[in-house]
Amino acid sequence: MIKNEDTLPLDPDRLAKRIEKLGRIGLHPDGGLDRGVYDHSWAVALDVVEGWLRQGGLETRRDAVGNLFGRLEGRSSNRTVMSGSHIDTVVSGGAYDGALGIHAAVEAIITLADHFGPHKKALEVLVTCEEEGSRFPADYWAARALVGTIEPGEWDHLFALDGSGRTIADAMRQHGLNPERVPTAKRDDVDAFVELHIEQGRVLEEAECPIGIVEAINGKLHVTVEIVGRADHAGNTPMSLRQDALAAAADLTLRIEQLAVTLGSPSVATVGEIRAEPGVINVIAGRARLTIDARAPEPVQVDALEAGIRAAVTEVAAERGIETRITDFSRHEPVALSPWLIDVLVDISRGDPRYDPLRMQSGAGHDSQIIAPHIPTGMVFVPSVGGISHSPSEFTRLYDIVIGVDVLGRALHQLAESDGGRT
Amino acid sequence: MIKNEDTLPLDPDRLAKRIEKLGRIGLHPDGGLDRGVYDHSWAVALDVVEGWLRQGGLETRRDAVGNLFGRLEGRSSNRTVMSGSHIDTVVSGGAYDGALGIHAAVEAIITLADHFGPHKKALEVLVTCEEEGSRFPADYWAARALVGTIEPGEWDHLFALDGSGRTIADAMRQHGLNPERVPTAKRDDVDAFVELHIEQGRVLEEAECPIGIVEAINGKLHVTVEIVGRADHAGNTPMSLRQDALAAAADLTLRIEQLAVTLGSPSVATVGEIRAEPGVINVIAGRARLTIDARAPEPVQVDALEAGIRAAVTEVAAERGIETRITDFSRHEPVALSPWLIDVLVDISRGDPRYDPLRMQSGAGHDSQIIAPHIPTGMVFVPSVGGISHSPSEFTRLYDIVIGVDVLGRALHQLAESDGGRT
Repeated sequence: MIKNEDTLPLDPDRLAKRIEKLGRIGLHPDGGLDRGVYDHSWAVALDVVEGWLRQGGLETRRDAVGNLFGRLEGRSSNRTVMSGSHIDTVVSGGAYDGALGIHAAVEAIITLADHFGPHKKALEVLVTCEEEGSRFPADYWAARALVGTIEPGEWDHLFALDGSGRTIADAMRQHGLNPERVPTAKRDDVDAFVELHIEQGRVLEEAECPIGIVEAINGKLHVTVEIVGRADHAGNTPMSLRQDALAAAADLTLRIEQLAVTLGSPSVATVGEIRAEPGVINVIAGRARLTIDARAPEPVQVDALEAGIRAAVTEVAAERGIETRITDFSRHEPVALSPWLIDVLVDISRGDPRYDPLRMQSGAGHDSQIIAPHIPTGMVFVPSVGGISHSPSEFTRLYDIVIGVDVLGRALHQLAESDGGRT
Repeated sequence: MIKNEDTLPLDPDRLAKRIEKLGRIGLHPDGGLDRGVYDHSWAVALDVVEGWLRQGGLETRRDAVGNLFGRLEGRSSNRTVMSGSHIDTVVSGGAYDGALGIHAAVEAIITLADHFGPHKKALEVLVTCEEEGSRFPADYWAARALVGTIEPGEWDHLFALDGSGRTIADAMRQHGLNPERVPTAKRDDVDAFVELHIEQGRVLEEAECPIGIVEAINGKLHVTVEIVGRADHAGNTPMSLRQDALAAAADLTLRIEQLAVTLGSPSVATVGEIRAEPGVINVIAGRARLTIDARAPEPVQVDALEAGIRAAVTEVAAERGIETRITDFSRHEPVALSPWLIDVLVDISRGDPRYDPLRMQSGAGHDSQIIAPHIPTGMVFVPSVGGISHSPSEFTRLYDIVIGVDVLGRALHQLAESDGGRT
């Protein structure tokens, strides 16, 4: 067993070279990385990672949706401790979102295998085939297969290919995957899953902390509001006769911002887009449309955001004598991660004299939120420079990465050597 | 002389038929009217109006830019009393903006000619060839030629044709007009110009008044503001770390609205467009751009609007720690119309027991604002149903039109029989 004050004998050079190599697969001349699930660069990337896993002495396998596994069998148990993340990228993405969680799991588990040999339980690298939903509207496809929540038939008809109109099932068959076998991807042997991911925000950077331990993945509201006023000549319509849809949209935007400020951190709310019609300088907008994104980690906070948004939409209508309506509404509940794994991760990272880990929430969605209701799940965040993600400019310093991989590796070691399972 | 309590023996049927006929020239299958200066439908429309003028016994003439005149010579003076408006339309415009001022002048002057014969001074219908600037960026081209403010060379190089890149000079030559002769269009013999126009607003409709006497054409500020914040993930960025360009734009929009409300009627200010970048639901906007249109009839009021806008732009930047800059700024001074003609028009319309005329401002621009600094100019507004203009749906009731033409005709009669000139 590793003592709490020890660090793992990781190989930062090897890690850096792997990051660089995977970061070139799917690279476009403009600098963006495009790896859509089941496309050519995606297939090449999986082969490359499989090579690393084999080279590290792990036994590799792919499941029915194309998830890749690298396994070190346990000494005395068939139960599994798993770590990994997704290999696909958004359109014009970068080399860290998803990929870094794969690199971390590969480096941690190969190092554990090299220095400790088999653990009590099996250790397994998971490379999920799809998380971003950027080729098909199939977000979390891989994780949903792993926990058995893809509905029968979903793979065959629901998702159209970009442009060509082919289904995700066609794309699977192209890679020798049989859509009928998707239910076989479900895993029942996993005692713990830990995902390392870039933060995609600036909280760690602002706190000058290299490690965030995620307590929950925020619940999310996505709301579209349509405002119908009256288009009039901007020069000839006195202020008192106006029903200005864009002014109403601005009013609502400030109320939404104020709502999140009033509810306090960690609740957030954002109006990311406003469109006015006709949208010209000398006409009072007759219509406007705005989108709201609001998130919080506790259901009661999401309730407060939802109530506040609905009230603001109604109040703006009443106060301005204008029509407002919610035309699109979705609510995703927050997902709490495993208290057991949060404790393990916090305890391990507390041993490092260089920092105190930050307990935090994830505002973005992750495979972990799909897996957590079925398998005890933990997440480690490492800092994103400038909070940038979903961009070729996303970057995390190697210094921070090594700290993150060390925390991950020591946690996996402890979990794989313990007798405990689900809690 | 007509007594104040008399009305002119107008022919409403003839007037209605002319409105209908001209309203079909340039009509598209979608219902919009397109008459760009020097295009085919424009030329047909001018020929049709010239036919009416000749049929009414007026002597017709075109000047160097293509303005059309129908003149009834004076009994004892070469000085001219003139009325009219523009024949061109905006893209997908309607049958009343501009055209109604032509119909009014044609009906009024032909009626005066029929019933009173020549007046002391000449009476002249003016059909201006261009006001809207919808084919070339040459707003008020016709009126500027009439008062001699088109700069030498302006017609040759400055204005590119839609798409084809031809100049306005080429388009003139196509109609047998010689651009070199533009300076000859200047008129020095006009004692008074009166334009009837649709209000393009809802002030008359709300007041249930058929006649507005315009005191001034509002000064106008057109401002574009760019806001530079910081694009961040909407889910992962606490409210306290944000530089939300769209929230800043919303904030500025409400300040601009409040500015006009505080300054009070008749000042108005409008944000007609806001664009956010990247403008997606889950990203805090890093950049936003908004346009401001602000108008008022007195220079001191335009000063207050300008100062208020500049202050708001600065305040939003300071309060939100964000960058704002004015990237585009134009100011057009208000134009006061002739007090003499305002009095004449108010006195004449006060004689009608059915209504009290409303003294008002024009928020929109008109040929009259170009002519007023050179020739005593008055304007009569008639109601726009629903305030609609620049649309195929623009409409003014015949009942209201007849009242307006009667006021116009009686004013022209009085002016053409008086000895007074410029005041």
